[in-house]
Amino acid sequence: MNDSKRIVLDAMGGDTGPRTVVEAMNLLEPELRSRVLLVGIEDEIKACEPDPDWGILHAGEVIGMNETPSQALRKKKNSSIAVGINHVKSGEAAAFVSAGNTGAVMAFAVNTLGRLSGVLRPAIAGTFPTSHHHKPCLVVDVGANVDCKPEQLRQFAVMGQTYYREVIGEEKPRVGLLSIGAEEEKGNELIHGTRELLKQAPINFIGHVEGRDIFNGSVDVVVCDGFVGNVILKASEGVATLLMEWIYHEVQNTAQKSGDNTLEQTFARLLKRVDYSETGGAPLLGVNGVCLISHGSSTAKAIANAVRTADQTIQHDVNEHITAEIGALSVAS
Amino acid sequence: MNDSKRIVLDAMGGDTGPRTVVEAMNLLEPELRSRVLLVGIEDEIKACEPDPDWGILHAGEVIGMNETPSQALRKKKNSSIAVGINHVKSGEAAAFVSAGNTGAVMAFAVNTLGRLSGVLRPAIAGTFPTSHHHKPCLVVDVGANVDCKPEQLRQFAVMGQTYYREVIGEEKPRVGLLSIGAEEEKGNELIHGTRELLKQAPINFIGHVEGRDIFNGSVDVVVCDGFVGNVILKASEGVATLLMEWIYHEVQNTAQKSGDNTLEQTFARLLKRVDYSETGGAPLLGVNGVCLISHGSSTAKAIANAVRTADQTIQHDVNEHITAEIGALSVAS
Repeated sequence: MNDSKRIVLDAMGGDTGPRTVVEAMNLLEPELRSRVLLVGIEDEIKACEPDPDWGILHAGEVIGMNETPSQALRKKKNSSIAVGINHVKSGEAAAFVSAGNTGAVMAFAVNTLGRLSGVLRPAIAGTFPTSHHHKPCLVVDVGANVDCKPEQLRQFAVMGQTYYREVIGEEKPRVGLLSIGAEEEKGNELIHGTRELLKQAPINFIGHVEGRDIFNGSVDVVVCDGFVGNVILKASEGVATLLMEWIYHEVQNTAQKSGDNTLEQTFARLLKRVDYSETGGAPLLGVNGVCLISHGSSTAKAIANAVRTADQTIQHDVNEHITAEIGALSVAS
Repeated sequence: MNDSKRIVLDAMGGDTGPRTVVEAMNLLEPELRSRVLLVGIEDEIKACEPDPDWGILHAGEVIGMNETPSQALRKKKNSSIAVGINHVKSGEAAAFVSAGNTGAVMAFAVNTLGRLSGVLRPAIAGTFPTSHHHKPCLVVDVGANVDCKPEQLRQFAVMGQTYYREVIGEEKPRVGLLSIGAEEEKGNELIHGTRELLKQAPINFIGHVEGRDIFNGSVDVVVCDGFVGNVILKASEGVATLLMEWIYHEVQNTAQKSGDNTLEQTFARLLKRVDYSETGGAPLLGVNGVCLISHGSSTAKAIANAVRTADQTIQHDVNEHITAEIGALSVAS
């Protein structure tokens, strides 16, 4: 086993725990699965009947979804998150994937792994669906940094571009700065301070974009501070949930009247399609190691996708690219 | 005619111009309609066959949807927006309603009407649908102020609460501060600075809320700066549009296979329901006069609803309440 290709998967993360993670393992390609190490409470993992060949790394504790990152960092040194990330730190694995407490994963990753050379602040990149089905939009940052400076946003742009190019696969991803209008006079102080930096950065900068552009396929990487990005992430989930509620209501009404079940089949297909949890995982960009965070309500398919994404991130040497491109930025500026 | 009850309606606003506005007039209750004055290019309004009894106020120019507010303010003094708002300023009418250029309406309103006594900055209140069908969520601000101070957000909270109570009708609307987590340590500098002010304000403050809460019925008035609010407004439209695209695709697929058109009927009902344009109009809170801005793609029904909302705002003396409540705030603090 080449340790540089190993992926540690948090068996305790997510709302449903080891059962969903074991299901996820069964969805993986055998070659990839053989490189995954499950981390968590061994008895609980074994109760879910994993294949006896799978590697298990015991960790005695679990960080709850509502624990504060700072408390977890101090008190949960034997948690699946801490043990998993330590395994990356020691070089015994290259990546860590978790559907657990986002803040705790971030705190342990930044604290234990540290930042890549030249990176001011790591950022979480969120993946949003677009009308161009197979090319999602990547929003950086969706929650790691609430008050940002223009220099940080410039780095988010570069890291986002690198990740998009290498992992999602697009030679020159279009990078937009999130604002409230296409015109340059629109925006707040942070936007005005960042725009000129982005114009001069070695990226395919397309200028200001608006909230709706995230979903219409007109931009690949959207740069914003983590407060705005997190609000968008959660508001989008809110809109989608509300619409699905309305649709379900209409579907029930119509199905009752017609006695026809094609509608419900259509609805089931739709639900699958709009399921945010299937998109895979949000990379924590800028830390010295590969780290992917999945939604707490991830399905087995979503967790399997996150493991595949982690593998792509390793295979494409994303962190080496980020270090080089951030380095070039510092020299140029 | 009691001038204090008159409403000036911009006949040139919106993507479709006078035709939709004339349709909107026909949807109004006769008593209300008799108090509306259409403002715009007289010939163009008359070409749409309005009732000969309707009042028309001629204005020789139109402000385009893409003109910058500052240019419009300087050059378009005879525009329907300028003439309409001057009519409110002079006391010949109490309210102005437009589906035209939002920035221009705001610029003329603030410039011509001025602020209500004690108000630091007027704000646009956006109305969002929620799962509790008849009680929308009001988000203040959705675009008037991009960089805000805590004192301004406190006023948005008070103005939003007043408007919600008087016009939407809820004795003690729940007011939330938009952040990225329920815990007090989550948020940015603005949030931390605002929270204590809101705790002490005479409002029903329920603490931090998140993006998804706007849509799930757990809060009535959400306070945020206008950059964040505008991004949410447009991102929500983006998500809704994308989902409708997907649904339409599924509906077409299924209908083709089954030859059944009940699905398409269901879809038509849905489209109506999710039509943002039917919600009516966003009040500009804090200016000395009633001013409502409708979406540029407003339907006749949406414009009629905006006129009804303007009427409610007048009838309930919302601006008098705002002045009193903002005044009390200044004395208390």
